[in-house]
Amino acid sequence: MPAALQLLAPGGIGEIRPGCDLASEILTACAGDGLVPLAGDILIVAQKIVSKAEGRLVALDEVAPSAEAQALARKAGKDPRIVELILRESSAVLRCVPGVIIVRHRHGTVLANAGIDQSNVLHQDGREYALLWPNDPDAAAAGLRQAMQARLGFDLPVIINDSLGRAWRFGTVGAAIGVSGLAALVDMRGEDDRHGRVLVSTEVGQADEIAAAASLLMGQAAEGRPVVFLRGYAGRRNAGSVADLIRPPAKDLFP
Amino acid sequence: MPAALQLLAPGGIGEIRPGCDLASEILTACAGDGLVPLAGDILIVAQKIVSKAEGRLVALDEVAPSAEAQALARKAGKDPRIVELILRESSAVLRCVPGVIIVRHRHGTVLANAGIDQSNVLHQDGREYALLWPNDPDAAAAGLRQAMQARLGFDLPVIINDSLGRAWRFGTVGAAIGVSGLAALVDMRGEDDRHGRVLVSTEVGQADEIAAAASLLMGQAAEGRPVVFLRGYAGRRNAGSVADLIRPPAKDLFP
Repeated sequence: MPAALQLLAPGGIGEIRPGCDLASEILTACAGDGLVPLAGDILIVAQKIVSKAEGRLVALDEVAPSAEAQALARKAGKDPRIVELILRESSAVLRCVPGVIIVRHRHGTVLANAGIDQSNVLHQDGREYALLWPNDPDAAAAGLRQAMQARLGFDLPVIINDSLGRAWRFGTVGAAIGVSGLAALVDMRGEDDRHGRVLVSTEVGQADEIAAAASLLMGQAAEGRPVVFLRGYAGRRNAGSVADLIRPPAKDLFP
Repeated sequence: MPAALQLLAPGGIGEIRPGCDLASEILTACAGDGLVPLAGDILIVAQKIVSKAEGRLVALDEVAPSAEAQALARKAGKDPRIVELILRESSAVLRCVPGVIIVRHRHGTVLANAGIDQSNVLHQDGREYALLWPNDPDAAAAGLRQAMQARLGFDLPVIINDSLGRAWRFGTVGAAIGVSGLAALVDMRGEDDRHGRVLVSTEVGQADEIAAAASLLMGQAAEGRPVVFLRGYAGRRNAGSVADLIRPPAKDLFP
């Protein structure tokens, strides 16, 4: 038998409203599609529905841009209210060029526009909204894991993912922004390779690889499959958080 | 029924020798494990076995380091012969600090040590060897695709992957280094999202996401599963190459 992994995504997850019980929504969608979560699965959830459940939708007409936001908005050619939100979500601005602002998010992840997105956000009453990241993505993953465990009776590691741009390469790739119940980073140093030569340094971004795999099935646009189960993966289950993946600026050669 | 993707890896791929017919080795391993490749599958192959089949193993005692390599080796604390090979494989050195040299590979990919690796390489006769990347990874992917098509009678897109480090984040992640028969980069611009708002800019690094997913099953150390089939993926199959993923330095904010 070949080694095998499965990625499974239930359909039927509708629009997520603030305060809604995400664990219930996920399990209802699974039941509707005949998808039975199993012990050993890993649950990957798109940032957008976690943010929506957390009520992180902000009406832009309630945002007053600071002078700093206005100056940056001119440089980037962006809506100053969006830039104000980007600054509030960030600890540092790394780059600002027309069309894009690269920041360090409050929780450490380096990304464009602090992850703030205006796509796939309902625009009610003619008002414009922007969707922020979950307030604390690792905590959000832990909360969802706890809620799933309460319903399922077993532990399901949770990864919250989003599509992030990279230095050096075009295209976004799914990456972990919140993790609970799984080592985000796996240190293989000291393990023997096939010929008994000890691996000198191989730390693997396990949670990012899982997040990228899930993105393949989630799709980016109209597909609407924000929940994925990874089945058959025998990776490390010890405690971890996205913080383990974040290079502090002092250890980053490309700040 | 939930949407589903499968990743399948045959065992039993032995040590790959220079000049060996990789397509035959892969199909023999598949047959031994009851894995039947299907039209619609995507084949992901680890860089190491492609390099070995191509004879990219270099005996270090045959490498004479240049003065530039010796100076860089002192700065990085590395074997000057390895550094000489790194320089030969690179078009530019971006960073050099103790333990790591970040370069732009001749074919554009930015990575540590030009992808040269001394792990999982047989050390015969007491001599030390290093394994270089395939000479032209996109061409190697195209060659393997052609050989598989000749044997299978249908087209199988091919991705060659390796584990690359990233700016800003710890841990390596599987990434595409050679692609044939598949769009490496998918431009979603202009597609409607669920609420009819047109996505402004979403280019997805499809080949990198597939490469990362395959890495989950390949493992890093003793597992020895360098070949993975992705089954059930309905992504874009048009022509593509890794070159599509490479930001030219002028478009890179973190050179």
